[in-house]
Amino acid sequence: MLFIIGLGLYDEQDITVRGLAAVKRCKRVFLEAYTSILLVDKEKLEAFYGKEVIVADREMVESRIEVILDGADKEDVAFMVVGDPFGATTHTDLELRARALNIPTKVIHNASIMNAVGACGLQLYRFGEAVSIVFFTDSWRPDSFYPRIAANRQRGLHTLCLLDIKVKEPSLESLARGRKVYEPPRYMSVNTAIEQLLEIEESRGEGAYGPDTLCVGVARLGADSQSIVAGTMEELQNYDFGPPLHSLVIAGNTHVIEEEILSAYRIHGAAQG
Amino acid sequence: MLFIIGLGLYDEQDITVRGLAAVKRCKRVFLEAYTSILLVDKEKLEAFYGKEVIVADREMVESRIEVILDGADKEDVAFMVVGDPFGATTHTDLELRARALNIPTKVIHNASIMNAVGACGLQLYRFGEAVSIVFFTDSWRPDSFYPRIAANRQRGLHTLCLLDIKVKEPSLESLARGRKVYEPPRYMSVNTAIEQLLEIEESRGEGAYGPDTLCVGVARLGADSQSIVAGTMEELQNYDFGPPLHSLVIAGNTHVIEEEILSAYRIHGAAQG
Repeated sequence: MLFIIGLGLYDEQDITVRGLAAVKRCKRVFLEAYTSILLVDKEKLEAFYGKEVIVADREMVESRIEVILDGADKEDVAFMVVGDPFGATTHTDLELRARALNIPTKVIHNASIMNAVGACGLQLYRFGEAVSIVFFTDSWRPDSFYPRIAANRQRGLHTLCLLDIKVKEPSLESLARGRKVYEPPRYMSVNTAIEQLLEIEESRGEGAYGPDTLCVGVARLGADSQSIVAGTMEELQNYDFGPPLHSLVIAGNTHVIEEEILSAYRIHGAAQG
Repeated sequence: MLFIIGLGLYDEQDITVRGLAAVKRCKRVFLEAYTSILLVDKEKLEAFYGKEVIVADREMVESRIEVILDGADKEDVAFMVVGDPFGATTHTDLELRARALNIPTKVIHNASIMNAVGACGLQLYRFGEAVSIVFFTDSWRPDSFYPRIAANRQRGLHTLCLLDIKVKEPSLESLARGRKVYEPPRYMSVNTAIEQLLEIEESRGEGAYGPDTLCVGVARLGADSQSIVAGTMEELQNYDFGPPLHSLVIAGNTHVIEEEILSAYRIHGAAQG
């Protein structure tokens, strides 16, 4: 059996009781560590599970999946994913590959940013399509998110922006030389996201949003150190949210109860409602 | 401290390790049991926690909230919610009430239908606004969901339909007589949802969807008995999904990988992709 297990948002304590029982019975335990990260070390997970944890990087999952699936028809294997297993397309793909090999699979769900973002004070059922914002490079400044944000805001809906994570990415320079050297990990901050968003708005000029648009920045959701701060793009652009992971919500139209909650998160204090 | 704890999708094993530790240290433990239900009895929860569990019905949460909050500034109180705490507006309201009384709160997240629905094979980031479908009565046939589904489908997005739950609702007749008698619990099935949807489409005739529209019905998500079946509205209308809880997804445009997964869930078997 292949167990695909969501680990939730923050640390080793966020696994479910069902998920922990499954991990404990598995012969091999993999941790997917490139679409998101937990805020604890692998060693802490290993001590908590009493098991060796094998880190599965993008290359293993996309090119050497047999390392994970071999023997999973005869023994139990755990593939652990930060958040919920269906947050990223690659996990769906893993399930398909397992099915094709007649390996039974069982998914154990958990919280992910896609539902826990409700903590920011904006109501989940008023979110439109989510978007991903990737790091700009000198030559590649993708803005396919722009019409989606515009369409959401036109309908008064909020937009969850998932911010880029680069873990164990080979440097372009090293790829050109044919010998992979990995870049240090990078996690997009709310600040960088807003900077990129405003640059795109400036160049497109269609008014999907602007410096005065209300947003909520969310950092380390679910951790004791979690930070939720509401303000305009301009106000949040220089706010220090601290260590990763960050997410950003661009508000649509807000309702009374949403405004009441957001007032407690306003960047200049609670009194501004 | 008031702990607002998500219980996840299915049974007592779906609580997180962090959530279970919190419940075990609380003096009083409430279970919100009217916006959703777990598929286990209260007694099973009590045995698992080693604690008495007090069921909080709508009346308690909306009109006698002090029963829950009294003393929570001095001792630990747990308010447990099926799914994630931010799935329903009432829980946001509870947090606001606690804050107004200077009671510290801590939220412990979990899976909810809002993110776990990714299990149906349609990608989460391609969902638009979610809608709620409530039971029609002879005189009340609300269709405010219709333009939302239409707008989602126009943009090629999927729509999660949250289906009505009626638990401990006083009968209209008994309200008229001034002495509350409660109706037996009712959980909307995929079948009823589709019947109501098609009735609304018939009367509005704007073509937001129709009998040939691809949908995915989801029942008891996260349980061993979970059922995920894809088909047109017409095909699913008479399919027996078994016991509650049910949800329905109305597909927008589907991508190749989505179609590959859905093919395994097609009502007439796996070969139809």
